[in-house]
Amino acid sequence: MQRIAIDMDDVMAETAQKIINIVNNANGTNWTKESVGKNHPEFNTHYLPHRDVLFEKGFFRDIPVMADAQEVIKKLHEKYEIFVVSAANEFPLSLSEKLEWLEEHFPFIGWKYTVFCGHKYMVKADYLIDDQPRNLATFEGKGLLFDAPHNQDITDFQRVHSWKEIEKLLL
Amino acid sequence: MQRIAIDMDDVMAETAQKIINIVNNANGTNWTKESVGKNHPEFNTHYLPHRDVLFEKGFFRDIPVMADAQEVIKKLHEKYEIFVVSAANEFPLSLSEKLEWLEEHFPFIGWKYTVFCGHKYMVKADYLIDDQPRNLATFEGKGLLFDAPHNQDITDFQRVHSWKEIEKLLL
Repeated sequence: MQRIAIDMDDVMAETAQKIINIVNNANGTNWTKESVGKNHPEFNTHYLPHRDVLFEKGFFRDIPVMADAQEVIKKLHEKYEIFVVSAANEFPLSLSEKLEWLEEHFPFIGWKYTVFCGHKYMVKADYLIDDQPRNLATFEGKGLLFDAPHNQDITDFQRVHSWKEIEKLLL
Repeated sequence: MQRIAIDMDDVMAETAQKIINIVNNANGTNWTKESVGKNHPEFNTHYLPHRDVLFEKGFFRDIPVMADAQEVIKKLHEKYEIFVVSAANEFPLSLSEKLEWLEEHFPFIGWKYTVFCGHKYMVKADYLIDDQPRNLATFEGKGLLFDAPHNQDITDFQRVHSWKEIEKLLL
């Protein structure tokens, strides 16, 4: 059975949208995922002063699930071995929240198939679905870049725009 | 540079001793690591009713460091890439405590080289130092069984009894 490693933030979870909402609320701005994608450097000057929210208790617990992720990952789970691999160890309080979040929204995966780490290059898998070019660059299997506002200028990897597209590609 | 994956509980940390102390305090017994090693099934009947302590906040934060682990892992760190790999995701509250513990006792490793997981067989490394036969059985590199009370009857892997022995073997 082939193994798929799946990133959490901005792949399974709508983390960018939550951050955009926080920035808009703090600054009275109207950033959207689309406008952030078009002007990521300017958004970053608004976002970076708020980056501490990532370390706050509760931040990762209530992030909305990415569209169609539950349905498609459930189907993938029947044909592939699924590992969730999240480079979250910079944020110690996030880890128990991420486990609770996965148990709530993806109970069929199970804690034995979760990985919290820093670097991802020591993970063996056939596929890695990730929004971060740095993780795909060091991955030895087939990498799929999940479309996200901050990776619009990346051309080095096969881009996937949605879970429906992944369904067509892998099922 | 070759990569060594190192387990935490009963390899870097004296977890068995902390559990033995809890069992002795609760039952008025005098178990030692040596006597547990000689009669692990009987100890388990005393231990299992107390296994919930592993889920309690704080359990993993103050475990003593294994003898010579700091000194030897620091030396290994100069010649190998060191990853800490702990199958701790069954215990969600342990994860932030384990990161704090590592930062206190092994600050030179860094969170980017920590992995919290369930299964370990998707970790790529040249060596795995672990006290659990199930982790070594599915590891593709060279496994070293760290001597622990609960693995005394295992003969399938090269056994190491101390960090000093690992120093001689790998340095």
